[in-house]
Formats: sequence, structure tokens, C-alpha cells
Amino acid sequence: MNYPTAEIFSQGEEVVTGQVTDTNAAWLSQELVQMGFVVSRHTAVGDKLADLIGLLGDISERADLCICTGGLGPTVDDLTAEAVAQAFSKPLKLDETALEQIEHYFACRNRKMAEINRKQAYLPKGVVRIDNAWGTAPGFALQYKKCWFVFVPGVPTEMKHLFNEHIKTDLKARFKLQLDILITIKTVGIGESELQQKLNDFELPDSVQLSFRASTDEVQTKLLFPANSDAIERKQCINQLADVIGDSVYAIDESGKPKTNLVSVINQLMNDNSYTLSVIETASCGLISSKCIALDGLQQSHYVQRLNLLLTELNVAKLDDLTKVAVAISKKIKQQYNTDMVLVQLYSGDKKQFEDKERCITLYNVLLTPHGVYQNDCTVSGPLTRKQNHAAIRALDLLRRVLQNKCL
Amino acid sequence: MNYPTAEIFSQGEEVVTGQVTDTNAAWLSQELVQMGFVVSRHTAVGDKLADLIGLLGDISERADLCICTGGLGPTVDDLTAEAVAQAFSKPLKLDETALEQIEHYFACRNRKMAEINRKQAYLPKGVVRIDNAWGTAPGFALQYKKCWFVFVPGVPTEMKHLFNEHIKTDLKARFKLQLDILITIKTVGIGESELQQKLNDFELPDSVQLSFRASTDEVQTKLLFPANSDAIERKQCINQLADVIGDSVYAIDESGKPKTNLVSVINQLMNDNSYTLSVIETASCGLISSKCIALDGLQQSHYVQRLNLLLTELNVAKLDDLTKVAVAISKKIKQQYNTDMVLVQLYSGDKKQFEDKERCITLYNVLLTPHGVYQNDCTVSGPLTRKQNHAAIRALDLLRRVLQNKCL
Repeated sequence: MNYPTAEIFSQGEEVVTGQVTDTNAAWLSQELVQMGFVVSRHTAVGDKLADLIGLLGDISERADLCICTGGLGPTVDDLTAEAVAQAFSKPLKLDETALEQIEHYFACRNRKMAEINRKQAYLPKGVVRIDNAWGTAPGFALQYKKCWFVFVPGVPTEMKHLFNEHIKTDLKARFKLQLDILITIKTVGIGESELQQKLNDFELPDSVQLSFRASTDEVQTKLLFPANSDAIERKQCINQLADVIGDSVYAIDESGKPKTNLVSVINQLMNDNSYTLSVIETASCGLISSKCIALDGLQQSHYVQRLNLLLTELNVAKLDDLTKVAVAISKKIKQQYNTDMVLVQLYSGDKKQFEDKERCITLYNVLLTPHGVYQNDCTVSGPLTRKQNHAAIRALDLLRRVLQNKCL
Repeated sequence: MNYPTAEIFSQGEEVVTGQVTDTNAAWLSQELVQMGFVVSRHTAVGDKLADLIGLLGDISERADLCICTGGLGPTVDDLTAEAVAQAFSKPLKLDETALEQIEHYFACRNRKMAEINRKQAYLPKGVVRIDNAWGTAPGFALQYKKCWFVFVPGVPTEMKHLFNEHIKTDLKARFKLQLDILITIKTVGIGESELQQKLNDFELPDSVQLSFRASTDEVQTKLLFPANSDAIERKQCINQLADVIGDSVYAIDESGKPKTNLVSVINQLMNDNSYTLSVIETASCGLISSKCIALDGLQQSHYVQRLNLLLTELNVAKLDDLTKVAVAISKKIKQQYNTDMVLVQLYSGDKKQFEDKERCITLYNVLLTPHGVYQNDCTVSGPLTRKQNHAAIRALDLLRRVLQNKCL
């Protein structure tokens, strides 16, 4: 089947000049994708009438659906209704019901309606009005050429309210929609290109779309299965692919089901066993702890700028082998706080090296558990905050791997 | 004079499907507006080659400058270079220097370059390469018809780095720009509407544009002065406005000069006196420390989930008055670590209350200094991570106010 295509069109100088980030476009796109639309384009323009008219004309020949946000306010730079009137030859006309609603909105708030708000009751002739109880601007919708256009205010709360209360239901009735299944395989400790290399020879059914997404914390492998794909075959395919990737996979999410992240996975595994945890941070400077605010078992954490301070405090000998030092520290912390696990992060390199974006530092992570000591080490590079973040993620990933592989 | 027009073009399925919010477009637009460009349009498309080619052609006839983010990665869905090659008839060609840089990138990290990364060294013929020390994808730039196109990776850290290090200087040389002067008055501890209220009666010259921008950490009041405005009058106006706002103002930035943030301001003030600092965190769960990675004077910090654990450890009596408890803790920490200052954050409310987005918690911050003890308390609300962030900001703001008001 063909999926209907959708575009998002945002109007406002504050968007094109970057004074606000256009979160509406991302929010609407997610909603539409989940409903079964293919979102093909976002466009934002300012308050130039010619730009608006041209863009409306282009979209009317390109997309099956267009959601337009912004430009419905009372002021002179709110030009959307005027642009629609001109682009689609539907002159503006006073909508008496809209006017009553706007007057009512102000009356309810014991405020006098300003004369300029009358403008918001003028809608292009023949459109379907979308009532807005949350603000003064009604939305409206119309068909032009192949495209169903829906116009809503740009204020995120009003826009979301109108979408959830009115537009979603209408779109489901208006379009023939079929919902694909999106699987997200989440990995830590493997790069995007290494991941793709591993999957190079993996044969996916032609109907399945593969894509990757790398962020600072993780890499996601995304598989989009058709709505009518067989559940058992789908599961087999996902498991085989996850096996190829190996134990960098920390979670597999499915669209419509709750989303996981590294900390939520660790939290689940720790809570299953009521484990408690202490953390010693150096390179991550509090970021392990900060990421773990929703980790019930984190009892306490400690950051020290200089290792010597910690060694003196705990009466631990200084050695060249930082893994051995970390193990000694973990045992002292275990004595002091008696948590089930102790995660210790040390690094080699001085402050200058740490702050220099051209230089690397080496991390030594140790996890003390009731059943033994586990460790990893790795090199992190880049600017200070990038090193900090990788340091936190790699330490948490040691904890995740030990918990997930049931080494405990 | 005419201002050159610019467009932002973002490539990526993750953007059009709404999986990520396109913060690059807003960031770049702000930078370009501050340089003297008029940003007229943002467009985001996915990984459909035909869409990319069509869009590049349209922009080449519309804008003087286009910054394109994304689609330069090693994987099959990274199509930007291919689209440029086809749209502008500039076939892809191996750039030996780019290949060496990519190989060097991996060699530095002791990793083998995957074969697919070779793809990133193929650039459209005749372009200007933009070296990228932060990642594997070089950027590139070229003139086509009326438009100067600049292509950069979509990873925000890499994109910003390339823009700041290379592209900005090049654009200043390439375009005749007239620079308005943007003043950003940065405040912490005051809300956007309270700020607007305070400034309601402030009379600005007609030529000055006023706007506000609220983020989770701070509220910025922005004043855009014409390039030819008088420096002395400008300074008077800024100072008068800052006086009206009061001591919530922690910094005043000017476009083209180094940018400050709350931690950089604190760092400067602490370094002027070689002050050292210890921190005790509760509600912020490591986030104070994490935000302070560039704060030279932060010697150590400690997070505890349960206050009782800390009280026992330090042998401090439990009292109903949490400010008094915090003062007692700060004195013990001072004894133990001998830092010039000790910042202690406590909060009232149990774990359930903390995690419930409908409920508030009250924070009690205490700062022990060689010249006395300072404190503030405040209420924070909202979801867990919002409470965490506000808790960190309010504690840091106590430190900033004490340092800035020279109470020490």
C-alpha cells in the first residue's frame, strides 16, 4: 500500500531567526509517523507574504497532508490566513461563530477584547473551522489540489491540544492509515561504522528498512517492519541481528511500548535483586551520579579532582597500575558504606591533558560485586565535556554488562 | 544596504520523523543573524535523493548562503555528497588529504578504519574541503549559481566546532556584512514573566529591538542595537536596564566577544582569589559537580541519597531546621577537606515527593566562606530531572551571588 505523505510548515520570524527552536515540527512528525504517515519535509519561513504563498502552492502539489503552525495571531506579522486566501483564491470572510468564541474567551477572563483580535475571526472562505478553547486563535482546515491543509496556532500547548482533541480523530477518518512497527536496537561501546560493518553481510527481508542513529551516549540500529509482517519471523530477525552485534546491545525497544535508556535498564536489573551501589568519580566529575538520578540503588557517590586526596583519605597506596589502585579503593569504600556494589573510575593523565581537546586520556573502571571484581579500560578523546560524557557512559556500561550477563 | 539572505537545510530521517528536534537550525540561524545575514527559510528533508537534489537546485536560485547539516556520515543513508554531485554536476572524487585525515582520526584512537569510512573521503569535484578534527566527516563548500553552499556534519558538537573554527571567519571575508550589536543580559533566579513585568515601563530607543529567551538554566534579555548606535549611549541604556532587573543579572554578553555562562563567571571570580570549594549534593544528585567540570577550584563533591547516612558519617545531630543542619555539615566538611568554601544543599520531602511531578520540594542551600555563612532556600517543582536541574542552578547561584557581591 502507499503511505500518505505529510509535511510540516512552521511560520514565524522567531523560528527562522533561531530565537526559538521549532519543537512543534518534531512533535507533530512523531505523532504523524506513529499514525502511519510518511513525513517528507519540514519548512519554516518568516512573515514574508510572498514566501508563504509560494510555499503553500508548492506543498499543495507535493504532499497529501500539511500541518501548518503559527501565524494565526492578532498582530500584523501574523499572515497565514491572508496567505491562504491569496494562494488558494479563498477570500477572508468574518466567521460569526469564531468571533463569538473569541469574545467569550475574553469575557471568561474578565478582559476586554482588543480590536485587533477581531482579525482572528476572519477565515478563508469555505474552510472547516477548528475550535480552540485554549486560546484566541481558531484553527482551520481545507483541501487544495492533492493536499489536506490543517492550520493551527504556534503556541505548543494550544497546538498539541487541538491536535489531540480534534485533528487526530479527523485524520484517522480521512486517510487510510497502516501502522509500521519500528524496532530500535540500542548499543553502547560500539561506533556507528563498526556497527554497520558488522551488519554488512546480514540479510534483511526487502520489506524491512534499516537505519542508524548515533548520539553522544549511544548508537541505535533501527528496523522498520511493515504493519502486516509476521510476528514470529520479525522476532527471529531481530534476535539474529542483535546476536550479530553482540553484547554491546543493551536494550531492544518497540514502537508503542515503553522506551528504555541505559539507566532505566540498569535500574530494572538492580531492583530485581535490591542491589545498592556506591560510586567514585574522577573524569566524569559527577556525571555518572547525575545521569543516575532515577537509579533507586545509588546510595552515594564521591567526586575528587585529585587522586592523591582520595588515596590519603582512604589510606590506599599509590601504584602505577591504576586498575589495582581502583580495586583497593573499591574495597575501602565497600567497608565504609557497605553497598552491594562499588563502581570506581580512575584515569591516567594530568589536568592539562584532560582539558586539551587534541589529547586523549585513558580510563580505568572497576566494579566490585559480591561475586568478584570486573574491570574495563578505554581511551576517550575530544573536548572536556565530551571526555566527561564518555567517561560516565563507559563506567555505566561496565555496570550494565556485568548485571546483564548475570556474572553476579 | 542589502543584507545577504541565508537558508538552513537539514538532512536526516531522524529530523523529519521527529526523532530528534533540529536544534542545529536554530543555533545556526542565531549565529547568522548576529553576523548580519537575514535568515529566510529552514528546510528539513529525509534521505530521499530526489528530494535532496530538487531542494539544492531551488536554494541555489533563492539564497546567497546555505548551510546544510547532516548526511555526511559513512552509511548508505548519508546521501548529501551524492546529491550535490548530481544536482550541481560535480562528480565525486577521492580527496587524498581527507582520506589521510580520516585514517589519522582512527589511528589516534587505536582503532582500525572501517572500509565504509572511505566513502567520507569522496567529495564533489572542485569543492573547498573543511577539515574536521572532531569526527570522521570533513565538511565542504562550493558556489553554485547565486548561492554559497556550506556542508557540515549533523552532530551538533562537530557542526558547532567547524562553524566557530573555520566557517565564521570565511563567511566574514566572503560577504559584505553589517553587524548589528546584540547584547544579552543573563539572569538566574527570576522568571520570564516577572522579568517582562519589571521592564514594562522601561523606555528603549525605537531603534533597539527587545526580546526574551528562556531556557531551563536561565532567562536571557536580548537587546539588538543598530551597528551605528553610539557606544556611550548604548552602554548607559544597558546599565540602566540591568539596574532595573537587579542582582539576578549574572553577566552581560556582547556579540563578537567571549560568551559567559554561570560556571565560567563563578570560575573567574574564584580564580581571582584562588578559592577552593567542596560540595555536598542531595536533590541535584551530582549535577552541581557535573556542571562544574571546568571549575578549577572544585576540589571534591559528595552526593548522598539519604541525609541520615551523611549525618552519621559526619556525626552531626538531626534537627528540624535544615538550614542549621546544613551549616553544621558545612563546618565538618571544612574540617575534613580544608577548602576555602563549602556549598551544602539539603532538601525537605521524601523520595516519593521528589519523584512526583505534581509535588514540590523545598531546597536549603548554605555556603560557608572564610567570612561568614550565606544561605538561600527555594521551592522547586515539576518532573524529577527538572527538580534536579533547578536544584543545581539555585545552589550555584548562591555561590555566584556571594562571589559577585563581594560579600567575601
